[in-house]
Amino acid sequence: MSLIVTGSVGIDTVETPDGQRADDVLGGSSIYFAAGASFFTKVRLVAAVGEDFPEHFHEQFNRFDVCTDGLEKREGSKTFRWHGRYHENMNDRDTLAVELNVLGEALPPVPEHYKDSQYVFLANTHPAGQLALREQFPQSKLVVADTMDLWIETEPGLLKDLLTKIDGFVLNDSEAKQLTGESNVVKAADAVLAMGPTFVVVKKGEHGAILRHKEGTGVLPAFPSDQVVDPTGAGDSFASGMMGYLSAVDDVSVDSIKRAMAYGTVVASYTIEKFSTDRLSEIDRSHIDERLETFGSHLDIGAGI
Amino acid sequence: MSLIVTGSVGIDTVETPDGQRADDVLGGSSIYFAAGASFFTKVRLVAAVGEDFPEHFHEQFNRFDVCTDGLEKREGSKTFRWHGRYHENMNDRDTLAVELNVLGEALPPVPEHYKDSQYVFLANTHPAGQLALREQFPQSKLVVADTMDLWIETEPGLLKDLLTKIDGFVLNDSEAKQLTGESNVVKAADAVLAMGPTFVVVKKGEHGAILRHKEGTGVLPAFPSDQVVDPTGAGDSFASGMMGYLSAVDDVSVDSIKRAMAYGTVVASYTIEKFSTDRLSEIDRSHIDERLETFGSHLDIGAGI
Repeated sequence: MSLIVTGSVGIDTVETPDGQRADDVLGGSSIYFAAGASFFTKVRLVAAVGEDFPEHFHEQFNRFDVCTDGLEKREGSKTFRWHGRYHENMNDRDTLAVELNVLGEALPPVPEHYKDSQYVFLANTHPAGQLALREQFPQSKLVVADTMDLWIETEPGLLKDLLTKIDGFVLNDSEAKQLTGESNVVKAADAVLAMGPTFVVVKKGEHGAILRHKEGTGVLPAFPSDQVVDPTGAGDSFASGMMGYLSAVDDVSVDSIKRAMAYGTVVASYTIEKFSTDRLSEIDRSHIDERLETFGSHLDIGAGI
Repeated sequence: MSLIVTGSVGIDTVETPDGQRADDVLGGSSIYFAAGASFFTKVRLVAAVGEDFPEHFHEQFNRFDVCTDGLEKREGSKTFRWHGRYHENMNDRDTLAVELNVLGEALPPVPEHYKDSQYVFLANTHPAGQLALREQFPQSKLVVADTMDLWIETEPGLLKDLLTKIDGFVLNDSEAKQLTGESNVVKAADAVLAMGPTFVVVKKGEHGAILRHKEGTGVLPAFPSDQVVDPTGAGDSFASGMMGYLSAVDDVSVDSIKRAMAYGTVVASYTIEKFSTDRLSEIDRSHIDERLETFGSHLDIGAGI
């Protein structure tokens, strides 16, 4: 089924604790999402960039099966920029510089022929924007949103409004605790569930993810990776595998969401092996299915003796 | 098969971030281990306590199917005491007071009729003691040891000697990084594996555990618990379910170890629901099997559509 993502496109500079860095590389939530989801289904992208968006980024991104009719190149504007540095633990990071640029302006328009989209991912942005975008997909079968600490702090009211209008919500563990005041992650997830959505996925980075759904629970570790180069985009990649799989099978049962989370885990495990979308450019669906099988064997606790 | 544990018995005082506390309760690594493993098999205990060891602790502990022929009550000595306070995150803790007492004296003797034990768990103590104890079980089929940051810092040589003489090693993630200098937990586990044992289990507290075995890998999240009262003993409880199951099925294949880790996860999930061994006193094997089934369904990523 039709899958759409709305979110950021950015020019990123990333520094990692082993002294590596990548300057001015393609990034942004919707880029990681669209690249990852393209292994499962055709993805529609709604995002805005500025005049300064480099031509070679288009070439890099055209490697993925993404419809870019909704990618607006806005005259007189500049592309979103982010510069971050990861800590030794690879989970925490400092933002050294950020320029919102076009992200702080009007939302990009949604092309008319996108409005029948049934699977919708509202990547992290101001919840007012997420609410406005959500209204544009009246035929949706599954709407899932992401958020960040900034909006939980500054726009809790809008975020709670959003939570009554979506089916699923993904956020990380510290955000879940911040939003709900619960220090136990399971209690925090349940408190989010009580705010409206049918399910919530709490992402724990290198420690995996927890699903609390009105009809069941799922818990997954991360894929045990020994070559983490750059965690940027891992969360969006996780969401991309999850939404890509759900859209491809057109099934939103709790069992399907659990399998979808495993696919998300695998896509994220590839993303972090190189900077930007470099590793995703090198693989195809067969790599993902192969690693999913390996991951399934890691999780297999058998039936006993 | 016969399972033996050597480790500490203590009088604990525990404070938790919600303002609860338990004063002078039964604790110690071998207590948590023996209580948890007793759901699977008869456990032999080797440990020492002092003259001050309260009579009612015996009654409390007799609830579990443990052979205490090897529990020495040493005249003129005092029992090990520990007083700790957990941080808000329930993973970190401060030791407010510790009295080694009998733990700092000679090792308790191993009863002659214990020396045919085939499954041996060397709970955390000075590695010289673990080495001396290890030698006393020449017929062992599986010897697994635990350790702590103190010995990694002060006795790395003895610890590395121990690693060449055991089959399995369990330690937590920060200890694995400390021992190997690797910040990636998978690389750290592999570096431990290169030191000698057949397998290593890296415990990550509320984030689960990773198995690296010469013949395979396992990854498990923790059981998603919303009622964590006191994490004390969780690591020993994990080891108890693991060793208890392995001993009961008398099979040390990698698949068996993965299932054993799931049992360990479930035993630990009960331990943390109350102080001391209070929660374990209330349950029987059927509770453990029931929760294992629930945990298996959480982990089930299915076979796709």
